Amino acid sequence: TNIHLVTPVITEGIRSLDDVTPLEKYGIKITHHLLETGPASIESEIDEALSVPGTIKKCIEAEAAGADAIVIDCMGDPGMKPAREAVSIPVLGPMETSAHLAAMLGQKFSIVTVLDSVVPMLNNLVKIYGVESKLASIRVIDMPVLEIENNIGKTQDQLSAASIAAVREDGASAIIFGCTGFLGCADAISGALAREGLSVPVIDPVPATILQAAAIVQAGLTHSKITYGYPRRKDLKGYDLPLTYSD
Amino acid sequence: TNIHLVTPVITEGIRSLDDVTPLEKYGIKITHHLLETGPASIESEIDEALSVPGTIKKCIEAEAAGADAIVIDCMGDPGMKPAREAVSIPVLGPMETSAHLAAMLGQKFSIVTVLDSVVPMLNNLVKIYGVESKLASIRVIDMPVLEIENNIGKTQDQLSAASIAAVREDGASAIIFGCTGFLGCADAISGALAREGLSVPVIDPVPATILQAAAIVQAGLTHSKITYGYPRRKDLKGYDLPLTYSD
Amino acid sequence: TNIHLVTPVITEGIRSLDDVTPLEKYGIKITHHLLETGPASIESEIDEALSVPGTIKKCIEAEAAGADAIVIDCMGDPGMKPAREAVSIPVLGPMETSAHLAAMLGQKFSIVTVLDSVVPMLNNLVKIYGVESKLASIRVIDMPVLEIENNIGKTQDQLSAASIAAVREDGASAIIFGCTGFLGCADAISGALAREGLSVPVIDPVPATILQAAAIVQAGLTHSKITYGYPRRKDLKGYDLPLTYSD
Amino acid sequence: TNIHLVTPVITEGIRSLDDVTPLEKYGIKITHHLLETGPASIESEIDEALSVPGTIKKCIEAEAAGADAIVIDCMGDPGMKPAREAVSIPVLGPMETSAHLAAMLGQKFSIVTVLDSVVPMLNNLVKIYGVESKLASIRVIDMPVLEIENNIGKTQDQLSAASIAAVREDGASAIIFGCTGFLGCADAISGALAREGLSVPVIDPVPATILQAAAIVQAGLTHSKITYGYPRRKDLKGYDLPLTYSD
Amino acid sequence: TNIHLVTPVITEGIRSLDDVTPLEKYGIKITHHLLETGPASIESEIDEALSVPGTIKKCIEAEAAGADAIVIDCMGDPGMKPAREAVSIPVLGPMETSAHLAAMLGQKFSIVTVLDSVVPMLNNLVKIYGVESKLASIRVIDMPVLEIENNIGKTQDQLSAASIAAVREDGASAIIFGCTGFLGCADAISGALAREGLSVPVIDPVPATILQAAAIVQAGLTHSKITYGYPRRKDLKGYDLPLTYSD
Amino acid sequence: TNIHLVTPVITEGIRSLDDVTPLEKYGIKITHHLLETGPASIESEIDEALSVPGTIKKCIEAEAAGADAIVIDCMGDPGMKPAREAVSIPVLGPMETSAHLAAMLGQKFSIVTVLDSVVPMLNNLVKIYGVESKLASIRVIDMPVLEIENNIGKTQDQLSAASIAAVREDGASAIIFGCTGFLGCADAISGALAREGLSVPVIDPVPATILQAAAIVQAGLTHSKITYGYPRRKDLKGYDLPLTYSD
Repeated sequence: TNIHLVTPVITEGIRSLDDVTPLEKYGIKITHHLLETGPASIESEIDEALSVPGTIKKCIEAEAAGADAIVIDCMGDPGMKPAREAVSIPVLGPMETSAHLAAMLGQKFSIVTVLDSVVPMLNNLVKIYGVESKLASIRVIDMPVLEIENNIGKTQDQLSAASIAAVREDGASAIIFGCTGFLGCADAISGALAREGLSVPVIDPVPATILQAAAIVQAGLTHSKITYGYPRRKDLKGYDLPLTYSD
Repeated sequence: TNIHLVTPVITEGIRSLDDVTPLEKYGIKITHHLLETGPASIESEIDEALSVPGTIKKCIEAEAAGADAIVIDCMGDPGMKPAREAVSIPVLGPMETSAHLAAMLGQKFSIVTVLDSVVPMLNNLVKIYGVESKLASIRVIDMPVLEIENNIGKTQDQLSAASIAAVREDGASAIIFGCTGFLGCADAISGALAREGLSVPVIDPVPATILQAAAIVQAGLTHSKITYGYPRRKDLKGYDLPLTYSD
Repeated sequence: TNIHLVTPVITEGIRSLDDVTPLEKYGIKITHHLLETGPASIESEIDEALSVPGTIKKCIEAEAAGADAIVIDCMGDPGMKPAREAVSIPVLGPMETSAHLAAMLGQKFSIVTVLDSVVPMLNNLVKIYGVESKLASIRVIDMPVLEIENNIGKTQDQLSAASIAAVREDGASAIIFGCTGFLGCADAISGALAREGLSVPVIDPVPATILQAAAIVQAGLTHSKITYGYPRRKDLKGYDLPLTYSD
Repeated sequence: TNIHLVTPVITEGIRSLDDVTPLEKYGIKITHHLLETGPASIESEIDEALSVPGTIKKCIEAEAAGADAIVIDCMGDPGMKPAREAVSIPVLGPMETSAHLAAMLGQKFSIVTVLDSVVPMLNNLVKIYGVESKLASIRVIDMPVLEIENNIGKTQDQLSAASIAAVREDGASAIIFGCTGFLGCADAISGALAREGLSVPVIDPVPATILQAAAIVQAGLTHSKITYGYPRRKDLKGYDLPLTYSD
Repeated sequence: TNIHLVTPVITEGIRSLDDVTPLEKYGIKITHHLLETGPASIESEIDEALSVPGTIKKCIEAEAAGADAIVIDCMGDPGMKPAREAVSIPVLGPMETSAHLAAMLGQKFSIVTVLDSVVPMLNNLVKIYGVESKLASIRVIDMPVLEIENNIGKTQDQLSAASIAAVREDGASAIIFGCTGFLGCADAISGALAREGLSVPVIDPVPATILQAAAIVQAGLTHSKITYGYPRRKDLKGYDLPLTYSD
Repeated sequence: TNIHLVTPVITEGIRSLDDVTPLEKYGIKITHHLLETGPASIESEIDEALSVPGTIKKCIEAEAAGADAIVIDCMGDPGMKPAREAVSIPVLGPMETSAHLAAMLGQKFSIVTVLDSVVPMLNNLVKIYGVESKLASIRVIDMPVLEIENNIGKTQDQLSAASIAAVREDGASAIIFGCTGFLGCADAISGALAREGLSVPVIDPVPATILQAAAIVQAGLTHSKITYGYPRRKDLKGYDLPLTYSD
């Protein structure tokens, strides 16, 4: 099963295939692209909006290149809905996927994320995805996305503290990382929780979503074309997208 | 009070200031721009996404040019949230404004709109705006946006039929036009409803939203900068936006 | 545009037209009445109930006297629904109007009000108005309505503290005054929030609602007569109301 | 157990103690009053509002006369909340009581009532009472309250038809009469449902609520004085109520 | 009115008829059974599941023996729904009944219960029963069911502390005991609340539910056979239940 | 990845491993058991309840035998919650899994199932799982579970008709089979929908859930032991379960 990962930013080196290599042992082949146009990181509605056109383009190209499904590498799920209109293979956002997964694994889940500025966006996504009643809280560690890598120890300490507080004070029984930049930190945070006697699942969104995407492909499923039909043909200025049209 | 209207498409002639001239008698001065980049009309998630970067740009320019508030001329409210981050003057979307207005005027409201393809988008907006319990239904007349003007009689007949059905069958007690392309049709639809003995408000979103924007300005209010803070400074490729940064 | 303000209590001097004079510069002419029968202030369900018959009467008189719209000067919105049945001009309650306005301006809003005894009433109104998912909290400063004026410094200090706590602890991104007796305090509370680095809208309900009422009139709208039809003719003892009937 | 029934209208003969005599065999002693001031029947928000002051008065008198609990004889539950502030014995409204009872007896309930004009009021009550997710529908038979008695055959036929439709088309599994004027019709409507093979509870609100009131008294319970505290002492014009005050 | 109480555990002596003797003065005759198969106490989903087959059996036997209604003596309401399919007399669970009762008596209620392990189960029940919007909180005193009796002083102290905290910190205006093992503690907890100036109803679920069951019988009501129809005849291994079938 | 499938009924031949053989090509090894005690099929709350003890036992045995995850082969998800307490490997119910999957693939989903008698149970599960806002409808084809196999043509015709109606009349954009007895019918129903021009995902719950279970195992996740802790040790009569205890 071929999964294409779109990292919807322009920052070279922020994501490498090594991050998801362990999934190959389950028969999943992964390809990857950054964007050519868009922001360096996604921490606001503006960043999110400016990542969408480039993400749609990469999704169309991935389908043309033979991908079986696409995973978008950002918890804002930028471009997921328009990309589903543009292609017929499954397009998964890690926020939507992780939220439904967490809803299955425990009574309530909390999201631990980077900055206050993304909280309303994540909260709105959880509402649209229909699982708001399962959300315990969204907690923030006040760490910009591009500083995570150089502060990995501090990041993990703060994620652990936020996760423990989410369980103890907010009633969470599962944790979702609210930024895909935290990839690889799940074991450390699970360990910290376990040392406090708290046995809760910690969802690392990118690998979890890639595996779900593969499962959806293997089940012969894709998104509804009633919800996400191809667009109507019309003039377009400033974007060069090889769209499929409904007419 | 100076209100700037951004019509988030590239189609010349689709909107003229004559459409909103009657509002000048209330002391409102209106300016207007189309987009330089974006789609010809907005009827899908893709169209909506591709109108956002150009809309943000026009909002920044309008604030710089001295507007007191901005109204976006599309029921998908494209770019409303990112534009609120980019500027400090009020930015109003007609879907959000009309939904709250309709919620105040009657027990439940229905939206009558153009095509099936915009229904999930409008439904999601109503959820995010927090008034889903006041939504009776969304009805569709199956008319592309760019064909409204040349089929105005048919459009009004179908809007009337859909509005009457919304009241009688779906329990609506107020009607919102689900496309700003229906501007100017409120009297005809109110009349058709009245002939059936149905006395319900019919909200023509653009003039209603311009008036609300003026009222918000006069009340000394604008959107929360806690929800919509200025973005963090970072690299950006492919877009040329004179952003204000939080740092 | 002529707006009539009904202050639904009998206490002479509790409201003066000077309070809303600044709105005249927007072309709004304001008239005002207290009640002839009713309570001295509204701080309980009983107070609210006993203010309703007198409020309905004042609304009928205001329409007969040529008002374009009516605003009720109490956050319990007493008599708003029955008055809408009695007249055909818009009748706005400041709780309903402020709640929808706040819902538009930020992700969540808090209400800061006088006494514990009004909290269930306000909470029920927010439920009926359909915006409960946007309510962060209701906070109380424990100050009776009729003591506000003589304790304005203390009132503003407590409103500031409650508003800061609502933002920091409850997740509010907008503030509504939960008593119209706080009229005129918005600048002080905004200032206190700003000194804490919190840039959130503070809604002073009476001026905001008068401006919204004018905008609704100018948009040619009024409440739905399907929701708020004229009543059926029937015997009535103890009240002398010049009602219009549906038959 | 002494239950006082307040019929919140002025129409002599609309209610007699014979209607509830069968409950005496369960050890319940019932007393009854009409209002001295108020409307002839309750079919609108105005009617409801004008019945409240008189209802509060009768509740205070009933407590003074030794009643153990009070039941208000109208599905608008007029005055229930303010009366609970005024007295310390339980005050039950038949809409609130029947809604919770129906919620216990089946998956969803429908309300069959008199006129379109009461539907928004009943719908708002169900929201406030917190059981909206259990409401299947509200159906109307278009029969004014004061005409029920002279059209009892037609009323029962229409109630039966509405109840059958509520079960078959709206998914109801329990029926509530949405007007206390239908007292005594439950057997006829249950029978009509049974003849269609539909075995659903039909709640006749007044006897059901009297029995619940007795059960609440016998359980040693009453409403919360945190929600419904005694009011603060203050001036009051136009009403002569022997209130108990919180101070 | 004959009410049969099923205590859905096997522990001799955990319940005696003396516990409910005071209800006889209201004309209620009570019979009682423990289970022959099942767990010693109910503190988990497993305990709950293993109490259900035995509970269904006792309900069928009680109906055959002439009971007018059945009350299940556990806040997990084990077997309530299947037992309603098996019999036609009312079967009441104390969690469902207490939740609806509390919803009527105050703005919000809290549940004070034994162990963390029952919180998700109680929370799910409140969701299914449709009154989640009235739930303030569920608090735990960390006391196993079978240790209550030998630690009654400590239990009451902790229940009092949890109830006071629920009112002061969580916004509760009514309290429900979340374990029927707390039977008889209501006066002590009401007293402790009163000493703090908090006048809130404290629901002791078993007596309150027995009284409600009697009221439902006297009102001629039972659960809907549309929701809870008799089961279809089919093979069954390992259980010996004298079922009535739908065919 | 080893997945154990528990078919929670006693009917020999109702499920064979051939049904899920195609999943082996994705590296999933499947084992299977029926129950020793329980009902022949699950079509009521009683059937569901009586399948739970046997299901818990089979789950404990499967974990001991080395399974990586367990899937319960019934849309009532019988025993899922207690089994999660009993074991530490993931236990998935196909209703929960399919509901979250469908919620991801389209705007709203409908469930097409066997009999009216299972509708309340499925509706309650969707509420507990937190995705009720995504449910369009539950439709019934009136076919007992054990008659499906001998009426496969009629079953598929009725499933197709129900699915088409769900999309056209109820607003569904995805379909879930509401009985695992429909295994293998997805292609036929998808085809029927496609012939009507309706491109919607049709979820065949058992294979979809097995694939999700494998994905969850591969992601290193399992359910939360905070929500689903091991039970406390206590006496138990009538069941012989090799439980792990929390103490």
